[in-house]
Amino acid sequence: MSDDVDAVIETMRERAVPSADERAELAATVDELIERTQEVVADLEVEADVMQVGSTARDTWLPGERDIDIFVRFPESLSREELESAGLTIGHQVLPESHEEYAEHPYVVGEFAGFQVDIVPCYDVDDAAEIRSAVDRTPFHTRYIDEQLTAALAREVCVCKQFFTGIGVYGSNLRRRGFSGYLTELLVLEYGGFRPLLEAGADWNPPVRLDPEDHGSATFDDSLVVIDPTDPERNVAAVLSDENLARFQHFARQFLAEPSPALFEPIERDPIDESAVRAAFEQRGTTPLAITFEAPAVVEDQLWPQLDRSMDGIATELERRGFDVFRTDAFVADGDVLLLLELAVAERPHIERHVGPPVGVRKHAKSFYDKYADEDVYGPFITADRYVVERDREFVTATAFLESDAFLDVALGKDVEQMLEAEFSVVEDVATLADQFGREFARYLDPNPRGM
Amino acid sequence: MSDDVDAVIETMRERAVPSADERAELAATVDELIERTQEVVADLEVEADVMQVGSTARDTWLPGERDIDIFVRFPESLSREELESAGLTIGHQVLPESHEEYAEHPYVVGEFAGFQVDIVPCYDVDDAAEIRSAVDRTPFHTRYIDEQLTAALAREVCVCKQFFTGIGVYGSNLRRRGFSGYLTELLVLEYGGFRPLLEAGADWNPPVRLDPEDHGSATFDDSLVVIDPTDPERNVAAVLSDENLARFQHFARQFLAEPSPALFEPIERDPIDESAVRAAFEQRGTTPLAITFEAPAVVEDQLWPQLDRSMDGIATELERRGFDVFRTDAFVADGDVLLLLELAVAERPHIERHVGPPVGVRKHAKSFYDKYADEDVYGPFITADRYVVERDREFVTATAFLESDAFLDVALGKDVEQMLEAEFSVVEDVATLADQFGREFARYLDPNPRGM
Repeated sequence: MSDDVDAVIETMRERAVPSADERAELAATVDELIERTQEVVADLEVEADVMQVGSTARDTWLPGERDIDIFVRFPESLSREELESAGLTIGHQVLPESHEEYAEHPYVVGEFAGFQVDIVPCYDVDDAAEIRSAVDRTPFHTRYIDEQLTAALAREVCVCKQFFTGIGVYGSNLRRRGFSGYLTELLVLEYGGFRPLLEAGADWNPPVRLDPEDHGSATFDDSLVVIDPTDPERNVAAVLSDENLARFQHFARQFLAEPSPALFEPIERDPIDESAVRAAFEQRGTTPLAITFEAPAVVEDQLWPQLDRSMDGIATELERRGFDVFRTDAFVADGDVLLLLELAVAERPHIERHVGPPVGVRKHAKSFYDKYADEDVYGPFITADRYVVERDREFVTATAFLESDAFLDVALGKDVEQMLEAEFSVVEDVATLADQFGREFARYLDPNPRGM
Repeated sequence: MSDDVDAVIETMRERAVPSADERAELAATVDELIERTQEVVADLEVEADVMQVGSTARDTWLPGERDIDIFVRFPESLSREELESAGLTIGHQVLPESHEEYAEHPYVVGEFAGFQVDIVPCYDVDDAAEIRSAVDRTPFHTRYIDEQLTAALAREVCVCKQFFTGIGVYGSNLRRRGFSGYLTELLVLEYGGFRPLLEAGADWNPPVRLDPEDHGSATFDDSLVVIDPTDPERNVAAVLSDENLARFQHFARQFLAEPSPALFEPIERDPIDESAVRAAFEQRGTTPLAITFEAPAVVEDQLWPQLDRSMDGIATELERRGFDVFRTDAFVADGDVLLLLELAVAERPHIERHVGPPVGVRKHAKSFYDKYADEDVYGPFITADRYVVERDREFVTATAFLESDAFLDVALGKDVEQMLEAEFSVVEDVATLADQFGREFARYLDPNPRGM
């Protein structure tokens, strides 16, 4: 009923590694790009060196990947403005068909010979611990991996990345919060291959701390800590969520028990339709509510942390007001956001209990009693040693709260708050949103450890 | 707008003290009873002395009270059986029209010349700290109060008892859990009168500890501690509830601010009818539920603690199952009990969240995952570092739980449990119970600090 673990891994070693033709094409393209870039640098009479970084530089890329990262390293004597300006000029000259994107500073993205190419300026610092912006670290990573990784281990990294992709934990962007390429490389290096990494990971009892160069100085709260070999104060796994660490452990065990190539292929969900969504929530007996609004025009790495923070803020406030939150999720599709609040309790009594001070604390007790004695409340009466009143509740339904002015006082992400201030809808019949968000509802309503 | 404090108290001094005629009638009756009892004791050739105890012995009784307590004190050499048997024999001979009641041991209750008379056997011990049953202590209390209380202070005690009666905190039975007669006497003694007691009580910030004889050795958790002058290890206020202590403080302040004879008269509630009960709960927007059953045939001091315990057990279990309890109460009328559960949340979703072990704890995690992987649940999926499933909830409504076998597993009082095992009803339309419990519903739905 199950293949042998090594046999499946061997199959994946063939599948997860680019063909000789692919590699040759990439190598030729990279050579040409580096040459062009060096020429532009020379023409501009700036002092800078040019290097390829990233997985295509380290031979740890997957078949079909067509990303080339070219870094232009400038001396530290340049000001930040000079570096940014020179970086953009070079990028646009190398890649005529290009546009600018922005991480910690701007860089140029364009197509070249069928590849997507990033041309990124950075500082040439002496030590990764003294970087001036996050991208300055990348050349150190490339150099370290280049020195450590044999061709055989590079293939193991490819298998591992393919596995991480299949189980939905690959990628360190702030939506996914999975394993970065560099983290994957370090883990394979640490354990000496994909299978030993699986076997170790299956047995991890977090927190787990790895320190390949045995030079870590800082402590971290994260469940997985992998000290950066190029920087003793950095945890390479800082972005990895607890969910994705647990998913890796779960599927490591599953693969070792029942090895199957299927785990290396991501699940594609089919969207479900309005009636399926409606039926599912009816069967659950919960009360779903949706807040929909236009996604703010920010990159995903800015959007998702804001959606997470907003969701937390809203759920916390609803709970505080007595509306029990069962599960939440954030969907983004076609430029719109849907914050899904699945409530276990969406309605409360008209009144709420309000407990006052102990009667024995005379001054406070008197002012509480005097305040409520003539108000239209039940009480004040005495329970245990305190005054209590039962007074009208501000919001009897969760919808009433979300549609009130009080809603926007909740802690929300900055850009999310701006969009909500402009316009949003509260939708009780969430099934009507299935046309746009059918794939997300499918994932939500059939959860499994792949979590996607 | 308000009378002067002293003027009202002076009025009450006249009203709260029995008339000369009443006192003469009582004195004559007590003399006759003691003489008769002594004759019976002499005839039986047992060694015992006879004494009057209680408020009528101490001149701290209220007008209209017609209770006489006669204690027959036997030597400690008698066995418990001999004492009980002799006590009952004497009681029945003194009071031909009588029956037996039971506290720590049996005693005889009967009518004599228009008075209700208790004839109670007890042991004649040397020291109140060495009593063999609670009643042995009473003669010590009577002797102590007799020695300390002037006629003027006895009148203050009467005023105070009348005040406690008016504000609903008088009586140390286990339903009321208020101030006992002895506690009232000690408090008036301690402060030297009713008004000084009010002024002190208005300012108490519990816990408050009084020790008239300055001999207390034990510590107590109670909010009010009054060390028994006849027993250094006993708190006379042990039965007093926090509610009744707080009520006394509340009304002490109110009386001092706005003295009125009305506070010396208990509130009588008019019963409310079915439509009033229904309208009230509709306005509150809560979900009331009633459990009704025949009251077990036990004395009130056994019934009420059991009702309290049962109510606690039921409310705790409902809360644990997600049904938020807003307020509860126990009603007894015409031999029936009504346990009222006013719920804020009476219905939950069909499913409940069930959080499993951390995925990192391999053995537990695996057995959780294997258990649920093939069951009809949502999941297992992973949230934070743990497996989670959403499985069918056992009881979706509070009524379903109360009507299930699981209900009787709740911690209930022994006799209450027996009655529930025999028969009970769960009533959702509680207004239909207004005919029988209309007065109790009136109190429940218009709560105030008098708490009755």
